[in-house]
Amino acid sequence: MSTQPPLLLALDLAGTFAFGLNGALTAVRAARLDVVGVVSLGMITALGGGVVRDVLIGAVPPATFVDWRYFALAAGGGLLAFAFSRRLGRLDMPITVLDAIGLSTFAVIGASKALSYGLGIGPALALGVVTGVGGGTIRDALVLQIPSVLRSDLYAIPALVAAGITVAAVKADLYALPSALLAAGACFVIRMLGVRYNLNAPRPPGTAAEDDPPGGGR
Amino acid sequence: MSTQPPLLLALDLAGTFAFGLNGALTAVRAARLDVVGVVSLGMITALGGGVVRDVLIGAVPPATFVDWRYFALAAGGGLLAFAFSRRLGRLDMPITVLDAIGLSTFAVIGASKALSYGLGIGPALALGVVTGVGGGTIRDALVLQIPSVLRSDLYAIPALVAAGITVAAVKADLYALPSALLAAGACFVIRMLGVRYNLNAPRPPGTAAEDDPPGGGR
Amino acid sequence: MSTQPPLLLALDLAGTFAFGLNGALTAVRAARLDVVGVVSLGMITALGGGVVRDVLIGAVPPATFVDWRYFALAAGGGLLAFAFSRRLGRLDMPITVLDAIGLSTFAVIGASKALSYGLGIGPALALGVVTGVGGGTIRDALVLQIPSVLRSDLYAIPALVAAGITVAAVKADLYALPSALLAAGACFVIRMLGVRYNLNAPRPPGTAAEDDPPGGGR
Repeated sequence: MSTQPPLLLALDLAGTFAFGLNGALTAVRAARLDVVGVVSLGMITALGGGVVRDVLIGAVPPATFVDWRYFALAAGGGLLAFAFSRRLGRLDMPITVLDAIGLSTFAVIGASKALSYGLGIGPALALGVVTGVGGGTIRDALVLQIPSVLRSDLYAIPALVAAGITVAAVKADLYALPSALLAAGACFVIRMLGVRYNLNAPRPPGTAAEDDPPGGGR
Repeated sequence: MSTQPPLLLALDLAGTFAFGLNGALTAVRAARLDVVGVVSLGMITALGGGVVRDVLIGAVPPATFVDWRYFALAAGGGLLAFAFSRRLGRLDMPITVLDAIGLSTFAVIGASKALSYGLGIGPALALGVVTGVGGGTIRDALVLQIPSVLRSDLYAIPALVAAGITVAAVKADLYALPSALLAAGACFVIRMLGVRYNLNAPRPPGTAAEDDPPGGGR
Repeated sequence: MSTQPPLLLALDLAGTFAFGLNGALTAVRAARLDVVGVVSLGMITALGGGVVRDVLIGAVPPATFVDWRYFALAAGGGLLAFAFSRRLGRLDMPITVLDAIGLSTFAVIGASKALSYGLGIGPALALGVVTGVGGGTIRDALVLQIPSVLRSDLYAIPALVAAGITVAAVKADLYALPSALLAAGACFVIRMLGVRYNLNAPRPPGTAAEDDPPGGGR
């Protein structure tokens, strides 16, 4: 990942920190954990999606294991969440914004990396989404929550949009910093609109939607 | 997987579609999901076992990521399940039959692929079973069901029989379409007999079996 | 793993057997399973941590798939647990001791193997812990328990100590049987002290600790 342009790298590192922080805070709320659990789940949230992608495309050891900054930021976010979980729990909006930045850059980088390893369009789209949502999904499974990405909220869909723009740009030979930022920006805007207006992806026909937990939110 | 004989390839593709459909239907029943969740869990059910096997033997990117038909059939099955979940929910028997076809071919192909990558007999048997049951196991963990393959039903055992016949045929230098079909057929028959007569694998001595959910079924 | 010194290899094999036995017994207690489930979860507990580590460092097929003794001991432990689950359930202390031996050797071997594949200090520490606790974590997720390693008990921390001593020894060019045994011994002692005095890792500030299940124990 260190061959990314500096701006994308900075966003990626910021996203890693945000995922570590947010992932650990979500874990604290979902289950009674000790320091090992909180920090581990923060790190799994921050690094899990990229690790799964790298294992699937054969890029091992995963990029985040080779560049120590990812590990340090993920662990730092988790430790911060452990130490200040009650105070940070009130800062919903800044953490949601940081989390959306992470989702956006992770989806772009995941899709472009999959293409650069020779995968086709379908798998590149899937791996863009997996990079963005995979870590949170593993965390949710470990604390026995049905992953929120599977149930509600516009979370995977903005990541899919970012991956789609990325794949289109690469295929048109236009992938560079501007198109990467466009893809990430589209994801970020859709995600934040979803949070603001509490939008959800469609449910199977015939299933009631009234018993939604109020507020939703990941 | 494209080097499989055409008949085995056709069964494998049919099984992928059936797993995508069945996996998504099972997910719809187990949890309230949106379209992202239903299709994702269908794809995870259809592709998960083969992906885990390929990662473990070092065949990355996984075969199902390279041949677009697997991806398309898995996603198509999941989308169909999303659109027609209520109507399809009534077609128990055809879906169970298709699912058994998938289990049978996945177990045969999984075991033979593991051997062709140089693994020993024990791991080849295990990877045959993992290819057949792995996707459903991951799906169940994500929707917070104890994987049914661990609890009840003859599901892993027919897959183990198919893997065993496959390994024996390869070791005797007799592995070809007839022996592959024999192995898959044995699995299919045992699985369908298990469904018909509601057979279960033995439980630990001393644990009561009366509180079985009636009907069982995967 | 066959290049380990004989004593370390013996401890590693003993640990594999203990994890298979203990993992299967834990699974029997947590959920109603059939023979497939009990043996599978014993094997997943015994082999899972090392498999995850080997996949992440690119050492596939995993070491435990290549040397048949690991497979046989893991399956044997699981089968024994299936056959004698009630009687073995009473032998808490010998099983806890064997389990602590497994944790200790797994952490040492995991950290040293990660370093020998060129990973940095942070990932090597993480993979030492993952090798020790990963299998039990996967098992717990499958039987819908929040992994005890995330919640309570000194379990990951002694593994981290063992990984830390191992990494220090390797970096100081002092890694050999004595330093490996020192690292494993430190882990073993801390783990057993934790069991004896029911020690736990710290919780997030402000979360109550009174509702701990009495006895703890993994």
